[in-house]
Amino acid sequence: MTRIGIGIVGGGYMGKAHAVAMSAVGAVFDTALRPRLEMVAASSPESAERYRAAFGFARAAPDWRALVDDPAVEAVIIATPQATHREIAEAAFARGKPVFCEKPLGDSLAAARAMTAAAEAAGVANMVGFNYSRTPATQFARKLLAEGAIGQVTWFRGEHTEDFLADPSIPFNWRCAGRANGNLGDLAPHPINAALALMGPIESVLAEVETVHRTRPGGTVTNDDHAQIMCRFANGVKGHIYASRIATGRKMGYAYEIHGTRGAIRFDQEDQNALWLYRTDDPEPERGFRKILTGPAHPDYAAFCQGPGHGTGYQDQIIIEAKDFLTAIETGAPVWPTFRDGLAVAEVVEAALASARDGAWTRVTQV
Amino acid sequence: MTRIGIGIVGGGYMGKAHAVAMSAVGAVFDTALRPRLEMVAASSPESAERYRAAFGFARAAPDWRALVDDPAVEAVIIATPQATHREIAEAAFARGKPVFCEKPLGDSLAAARAMTAAAEAAGVANMVGFNYSRTPATQFARKLLAEGAIGQVTWFRGEHTEDFLADPSIPFNWRCAGRANGNLGDLAPHPINAALALMGPIESVLAEVETVHRTRPGGTVTNDDHAQIMCRFANGVKGHIYASRIATGRKMGYAYEIHGTRGAIRFDQEDQNALWLYRTDDPEPERGFRKILTGPAHPDYAAFCQGPGHGTGYQDQIIIEAKDFLTAIETGAPVWPTFRDGLAVAEVVEAALASARDGAWTRVTQV
Amino acid sequence: MTRIGIGIVGGGYMGKAHAVAMSAVGAVFDTALRPRLEMVAASSPESAERYRAAFGFARAAPDWRALVDDPAVEAVIIATPQATHREIAEAAFARGKPVFCEKPLGDSLAAARAMTAAAEAAGVANMVGFNYSRTPATQFARKLLAEGAIGQVTWFRGEHTEDFLADPSIPFNWRCAGRANGNLGDLAPHPINAALALMGPIESVLAEVETVHRTRPGGTVTNDDHAQIMCRFANGVKGHIYASRIATGRKMGYAYEIHGTRGAIRFDQEDQNALWLYRTDDPEPERGFRKILTGPAHPDYAAFCQGPGHGTGYQDQIIIEAKDFLTAIETGAPVWPTFRDGLAVAEVVEAALASARDGAWTRVTQV
Amino acid sequence: MTRIGIGIVGGGYMGKAHAVAMSAVGAVFDTALRPRLEMVAASSPESAERYRAAFGFARAAPDWRALVDDPAVEAVIIATPQATHREIAEAAFARGKPVFCEKPLGDSLAAARAMTAAAEAAGVANMVGFNYSRTPATQFARKLLAEGAIGQVTWFRGEHTEDFLADPSIPFNWRCAGRANGNLGDLAPHPINAALALMGPIESVLAEVETVHRTRPGGTVTNDDHAQIMCRFANGVKGHIYASRIATGRKMGYAYEIHGTRGAIRFDQEDQNALWLYRTDDPEPERGFRKILTGPAHPDYAAFCQGPGHGTGYQDQIIIEAKDFLTAIETGAPVWPTFRDGLAVAEVVEAALASARDGAWTRVTQV
Repeated sequence: MTRIGIGIVGGGYMGKAHAVAMSAVGAVFDTALRPRLEMVAASSPESAERYRAAFGFARAAPDWRALVDDPAVEAVIIATPQATHREIAEAAFARGKPVFCEKPLGDSLAAARAMTAAAEAAGVANMVGFNYSRTPATQFARKLLAEGAIGQVTWFRGEHTEDFLADPSIPFNWRCAGRANGNLGDLAPHPINAALALMGPIESVLAEVETVHRTRPGGTVTNDDHAQIMCRFANGVKGHIYASRIATGRKMGYAYEIHGTRGAIRFDQEDQNALWLYRTDDPEPERGFRKILTGPAHPDYAAFCQGPGHGTGYQDQIIIEAKDFLTAIETGAPVWPTFRDGLAVAEVVEAALASARDGAWTRVTQV
Repeated sequence: MTRIGIGIVGGGYMGKAHAVAMSAVGAVFDTALRPRLEMVAASSPESAERYRAAFGFARAAPDWRALVDDPAVEAVIIATPQATHREIAEAAFARGKPVFCEKPLGDSLAAARAMTAAAEAAGVANMVGFNYSRTPATQFARKLLAEGAIGQVTWFRGEHTEDFLADPSIPFNWRCAGRANGNLGDLAPHPINAALALMGPIESVLAEVETVHRTRPGGTVTNDDHAQIMCRFANGVKGHIYASRIATGRKMGYAYEIHGTRGAIRFDQEDQNALWLYRTDDPEPERGFRKILTGPAHPDYAAFCQGPGHGTGYQDQIIIEAKDFLTAIETGAPVWPTFRDGLAVAEVVEAALASARDGAWTRVTQV
Repeated sequence: MTRIGIGIVGGGYMGKAHAVAMSAVGAVFDTALRPRLEMVAASSPESAERYRAAFGFARAAPDWRALVDDPAVEAVIIATPQATHREIAEAAFARGKPVFCEKPLGDSLAAARAMTAAAEAAGVANMVGFNYSRTPATQFARKLLAEGAIGQVTWFRGEHTEDFLADPSIPFNWRCAGRANGNLGDLAPHPINAALALMGPIESVLAEVETVHRTRPGGTVTNDDHAQIMCRFANGVKGHIYASRIATGRKMGYAYEIHGTRGAIRFDQEDQNALWLYRTDDPEPERGFRKILTGPAHPDYAAFCQGPGHGTGYQDQIIIEAKDFLTAIETGAPVWPTFRDGLAVAEVVEAALASARDGAWTRVTQV
Repeated sequence: MTRIGIGIVGGGYMGKAHAVAMSAVGAVFDTALRPRLEMVAASSPESAERYRAAFGFARAAPDWRALVDDPAVEAVIIATPQATHREIAEAAFARGKPVFCEKPLGDSLAAARAMTAAAEAAGVANMVGFNYSRTPATQFARKLLAEGAIGQVTWFRGEHTEDFLADPSIPFNWRCAGRANGNLGDLAPHPINAALALMGPIESVLAEVETVHRTRPGGTVTNDDHAQIMCRFANGVKGHIYASRIATGRKMGYAYEIHGTRGAIRFDQEDQNALWLYRTDDPEPERGFRKILTGPAHPDYAAFCQGPGHGTGYQDQIIIEAKDFLTAIETGAPVWPTFRDGLAVAEVVEAALASARDGAWTRVTQV
């Protein structure tokens, strides 16, 4: 067994999730390459020390540069605000270190392009953290679609809906300014990534983007609350994507439904251990959506539990990401979603913004 | 108790539903005005006689004109193909007879306008058959929204999805030609009507309309299979409407979800006896969508059953329509949805078609 | 087409349901034999006249005897309190008239036995009103079981739960006295009937019967609030039945689940248009309970609607009963459930009471 | 931060779960006391070495005695077959070491009693692994009940249903012999523990225990496949418990429903992130079961994720157990469920067996 020194930049919500994942992943997946929690960096040395102690890292870094430079840090996880992604990633790649970056890839299309170029120039493992696509259910949905289980696909609808800003009396906070922190920058990448993963490339979009609550106690909101995107996939299929941070009652509405000529698939992350499958080859009186509970028969589930229906949760998705990142490092082969996959999402976001501005169908440009 | 002679034109699917409804409505609602199944007309005298015997009418008409002319027919129900709606309705109104017309109102915007003008010139009861908006659940949803139960509304999503043409090997049939028989003409009016009923007028739309299966055994399909409409309501709220006849697995997907600043509502006609309501004034740890089973506390339910949760079904919606039509005739006061309400739906359909052609936001014009 | 004069005794909740059903059944099912709403009787001539006018009967009877004696009344529906069932039924049978009696069959085992004997001596059509077993879903479940769709059955659980007396502050009323009006007399017959219909005869029971709220404003409760019954079917399968009128939150909890070696079935009347079926011959990764929406492929559905998933409701069950009663009269062949089937339910209730008293397994005696 | 050396006996299904949990718990909960994966023992030194490498322990033990004796092992987790629990636990307690023992507590009531006595004589931390009661949902249900949220409780129904032996062609294996490996020994303790946790002590039971598939390829089954228990709680409430390993279609049917005079609670582990709550103080037209998605407002959830509805899974339950065990060790105060709580479960199992043998109500004896 080989150990690799992991450095995490950022100790908040996602930094913690990755720290936990790196603590557990070896025991869960019996990986050949095992992580060593080497170093954590944060917005200040004091925060870093606090995270070090809380999460069990060997050392705290005075700042992210020291972490990236440290020879014992052999792979870097970026779990900081989006505006900082690019600089950190580029520095790590410059040192030939594999990088796992939280979604979305930087705070603009330009950043995503630069980061992808840096990753590919470095030729090292690079991944983006679209954790929701890691559930056994969604992995299984991808597999079913790839196998043609529902025939020719004819419609896709995806959404990511939460309600953390649904109440207009919630005071202005950091999420309320900066395009990348808005709904389109922050939440929409999830269903866009799902659309790409399940359906393939998006060719053009027609979007509508809106700030519903324009003022909040303490400030004026300058990014969007929700957005809808009509889309045309490269395979000719039409679809609709919706993302919202004001979807009252929805807590984790990462959901999709896909119709095909011989079946249909439905999923909602709020019940993440079930995939609904309809098949027209069932005898007619018995046709119906099957509620398939995930189990060892589905991707990555067996590592967590031998019994079907026992369920995986949010943190387990991050553990699966950790396993995939270690695998990419060990094998040298890219593991989806790479930075290029993250870039594809950024391109759709950019096209959606342009479309909403123009009120017209807009092609998604790909480098 | 007064009896009114009912004439039904058309004895198929919807003609039967209205015949059953008129047979039952008096006993269900103890209406002041009671129907008498006077006459049925169909595409031939032989069919009419068959329907007469099956449904229990007193007489069969040789054709619809004879029915409309017959002095014992005091109110007319039109349950024929859409292309015939206008002529029949105009004839009935010309004789001062109340008319209940199945949705949609005629086969074009011009027809809907002419029919509405005729209805209003006649000054008699006129209604359109949007049966799905008659469930106790959807009536209750309208009431909740009217009372502001979920605060300021911020999003509407509606759909009507079925799968009767999802299989491309289904042969070409009458549904496959004629704009009015297509998905946008036939199914989309349901969720458009729901949108108008729940949210108020639609100001502009941006639509996409598609024939997915362009050829079928026996013919070339000339109308649409599915359509999506981004919409802006007059009250400023944004929304999305989807209608499809190729939505594999969906049998009666008349569904909507509405977000507001203080709550949310969800409904799916496939479980038509439940309305889902979320309220932010519940204490936080107890917040969740409540599955409200319809019962005597909800509109029109008590007439069918004294016990909550016992359920109403498709046919009961038609009985409610029958009660409303009789009420409109008896009281002389309009009962929603009138021909003018049906016209409003046709205007949205027209705008959607224009928008899909132009790929641009299109205003809904109202006469 | 032949018409038969129907007399209904009782104009309350169930009397109305049967009046509506008899108004509608001919149009719904195009029955060969058609009902004529001849006469209604009630607790007083005044009530009878009120019901006559409300439901559209030709005549009101001064009392039930007059109705039974009236030559124009050719078939009798009994929708009165249970204590009166026997006398009315015996009188009707004595005159050779077919009888449809609401469940349960009389107010005691003795009554049920006498009524069954009278029915069989008369040799005319006789049925008991277990309406919940008439849904297309439950009829389809019976068919699936009869075909062995889930292999060898290994477990049955059934319940009927409502909450109309869950609140102890609800005043004492007629439901609170008299064994037949209690939960075991009134509600338990439903799941017992379901158990017999789906599984076959019950051999022995061990029951527990309890009055939870012993006093209510205005009186002392003398019958039970809920009861549980462990049972052993004649086919060797074990099961459990629960009935309650204090099941807070449950409105129409007529529900069952059945396990077999090759599948399972689940149903809940609160979502009466769905049957859940699990089959082990699905490939393992795709196994799951299918939510089958009832449609024209299922028994009796097509008469109400051509589209699947459009749904039937409570009143439709009574219309199905009306069709079955007319069929039994017309054909002379018994239609399930006959009085003998109702008697089988009464025998289980009797055994449950004895078992609860003795705290021991008790055989169900059958005449 | 203090570290404590953890020794795990057993490296199979549950041993792995505890190893993962001990790897992750510090980072998840920022516990004051942190585990050190010191040693693992298994059925052979070779297995132990394999587990050591896979799970990341410092050392492998030649056998469990060496592990218990090792001074660096400061706390012992027992994850072995039930027949071995007692010996290992007694040895650990004899050395004054805290013990976490997988459920059930030993393979007989005698074993459970001896183990509890040993634990209490040692005066060290002791816990039993009823992991399903650790979900945020079930912890919240306990809290709601303790606060009287649903008024006076009137009924409890609990079950634990899986289907791993539903197919009679599954060959005879170790689960098919030995009372403790049967359904009543292995699965029933889960819902019994739930019943005790949610409702308090059980006073008497009447049970039925059955081996449905008596022979399997390769052997004769000598323990039970499913069992039902009618029970009377010490607080006077009645209930029913069912456990099965042949419940086709059920994968993790740890479920309960509880009725009270002012509300009701429902839960099913197959959708472990939702608790259903009904409250009668909602206005009548809005009453319904609320689907509450677990979130930071519920016990132990926030450590895993800041967002509600993101979900916890099976492995997270074991992490919560690890946190509780560390807390018990650190604080010296007992944390539920202790060995005594595990003993209470064993007493109900014993009473159920006696009752099934006698076919009569049987008191649960408590030491």
